[in-house]
Amino acid sequence: MEKSPQQEHPVKAFGWAAKDPSGLLSPFPFSRRATGDEDVQFKVLFCGICHSDLHNIKNEWGFSQYPLVPGHEIVGVVTEVGSKVRNFKVGDRVGVGCMVSSCRSCENCADDLENYCPKIMLTYNSIYYDGTTTYGGYSDIMVANEHFVVHIPNNLPLDAAAPLLCAGITTYSPLKYFGLDKPGMHVGVVGLGGLGHVAVKFAKAFGVKVTVISTSPDKKEEALTRLGADSFLISKDPDQMQAAMGTMDGILDTVSAVHPLLPLIGLLKSHGKLVMVGAPDQPLELPVFPLLMGRKIIAGSGIGGMKETQEMIDFAAKHNITADIEVISADYLNTAMERLAKADVKYRFVIDIGNTLKAS
Amino acid sequence: MEKSPQQEHPVKAFGWAAKDPSGLLSPFPFSRRATGDEDVQFKVLFCGICHSDLHNIKNEWGFSQYPLVPGHEIVGVVTEVGSKVRNFKVGDRVGVGCMVSSCRSCENCADDLENYCPKIMLTYNSIYYDGTTTYGGYSDIMVANEHFVVHIPNNLPLDAAAPLLCAGITTYSPLKYFGLDKPGMHVGVVGLGGLGHVAVKFAKAFGVKVTVISTSPDKKEEALTRLGADSFLISKDPDQMQAAMGTMDGILDTVSAVHPLLPLIGLLKSHGKLVMVGAPDQPLELPVFPLLMGRKIIAGSGIGGMKETQEMIDFAAKHNITADIEVISADYLNTAMERLAKADVKYRFVIDIGNTLKAS
Repeated sequence: MEKSPQQEHPVKAFGWAAKDPSGLLSPFPFSRRATGDEDVQFKVLFCGICHSDLHNIKNEWGFSQYPLVPGHEIVGVVTEVGSKVRNFKVGDRVGVGCMVSSCRSCENCADDLENYCPKIMLTYNSIYYDGTTTYGGYSDIMVANEHFVVHIPNNLPLDAAAPLLCAGITTYSPLKYFGLDKPGMHVGVVGLGGLGHVAVKFAKAFGVKVTVISTSPDKKEEALTRLGADSFLISKDPDQMQAAMGTMDGILDTVSAVHPLLPLIGLLKSHGKLVMVGAPDQPLELPVFPLLMGRKIIAGSGIGGMKETQEMIDFAAKHNITADIEVISADYLNTAMERLAKADVKYRFVIDIGNTLKAS
Repeated sequence: MEKSPQQEHPVKAFGWAAKDPSGLLSPFPFSRRATGDEDVQFKVLFCGICHSDLHNIKNEWGFSQYPLVPGHEIVGVVTEVGSKVRNFKVGDRVGVGCMVSSCRSCENCADDLENYCPKIMLTYNSIYYDGTTTYGGYSDIMVANEHFVVHIPNNLPLDAAAPLLCAGITTYSPLKYFGLDKPGMHVGVVGLGGLGHVAVKFAKAFGVKVTVISTSPDKKEEALTRLGADSFLISKDPDQMQAAMGTMDGILDTVSAVHPLLPLIGLLKSHGKLVMVGAPDQPLELPVFPLLMGRKIIAGSGIGGMKETQEMIDFAAKHNITADIEVISADYLNTAMERLAKADVKYRFVIDIGNTLKAS
């Protein structure tokens, strides 16, 4: 007989879980495995709320298993390390992002691209080697193989650094891989949410000219003043879009709603790159002729490897880049999810796990 | 008052033209400009029939002007050169492809990418600097600025070399630019027509493993035996497609009909590239999630610059690469067009202009 989530492991844990696709989260006592030889155990202090948490809670991607403890922007302080752990010690400030395992032997793993390993295990809603379900960071304690843990430098506040573990690497990695990190380039960022606002900060730190492209005119002020973007385009304004045609080396498209690609392709210079990091659940319309006329590229990118995640965090520390966050208490979670569904947050909710998550 | 095509220039010329969108071509006396200082004039001996000729004849892309003399795979022998011409002399074997002018001052032109110059002038159906319409190679005489003329090496037969000027460069250029020319790579070629069959030859010459992907099982034999492809996939066979998932570094998609992209994206390895060189007239469905999961790319590419076109021709000469052609006489043109519309040709019609085009 299978053991319950509360009994299957020796270490007591407590979190909030979705029990069904209703969208509601509720308190959830469960357990974590004992700290293995290569494992790092840490007390969770903060966890960011990613929009994909909402998709998973509601089973909008169709592969949710309940109970489901979301959260993959997890930071805290190390409480125990396994005997073979080399890079972490008790008291270290650490983080875990979207994944907790990969095969470590395929070509992608060998290239430090564990995020593209076909056997990737996600931080929550995956089945781990021991047959138990992985539970995420809306919980008081975390344990993970040290390979999937990163250091958080001391000058980064833990709360505002948490979203870097997903939103940060998701935007940093494609800007680097697709060569959109060269000073003097002109890069567009579509959508000013959790991903977009961090993308603007990284791109500016790279020395790139940044234009925010948004459907909402009321985001202009914050884009230019608060985030330091160089210019702002209202995607629904044909005159503005026309004037910007052919001016961008690349575009990072963070929008996960269905939206037209043709105007974005038009903004690119010849040989320009439109990189999608949001995942619309319906196919988009792809006009091919405009791609041919300028040898343009449409690409996708998903998070980043562990080596690059640490590199990104270190870069963020050097340039004082963190997310703009609204810290919430655990009992505000369901309200936060309702607001997130309406994009009513600037720009990331972060749960104060350390101070507010109490086993009731 | 505007002069007629027959009177606007001093040099008498004769060709076949579409006079309206009916699809029919008929004899057309017109005229060519006198050979300018930088111009090369040549007697046309052969001209390939590209599928885009058919689109233009019927105004299927909506910008055809009549009378329209098609043809942009033009080869012949030089009859006159201007006083400032440095690279050509009377008697040289030469060719002209898809374009006859560009601005020569923009970034793309400076990078030898005249094909992406915003002011590109096409070999036919464009308005030249003197205000007259450009006429293509279904005609007995051609004149062009030497910058847009290439040498055809002596070991290449002129008739089978003609299609290299469009089909050749259209496939060679993206294989090089997108790095799909490395020995040992695995590249798919979708569609075995005028473009596809040349793509197979170039890819094989690069040392790449080539898989032809086609809807037609009856093309398997010719793909493997005649063209030397390494394997053959029937795109409508789910088992075959499933077995080939994640095996290709890149795919060159030559199909200009609307077709599904998802199975092709699935054939790519992580970080693989699907390059479109055909131009469907309707948008295709683009599923974004599969791009994200493997950092995959969809790109477009259109012909190539003049420097690369000469490089391609020289590479073809070195490796004895030409198109597989069916040579036709000028009076067979309308029948050939009907057959081309049904893809009933292996793989390129080439008009024997020198021997069969007679002013009637």
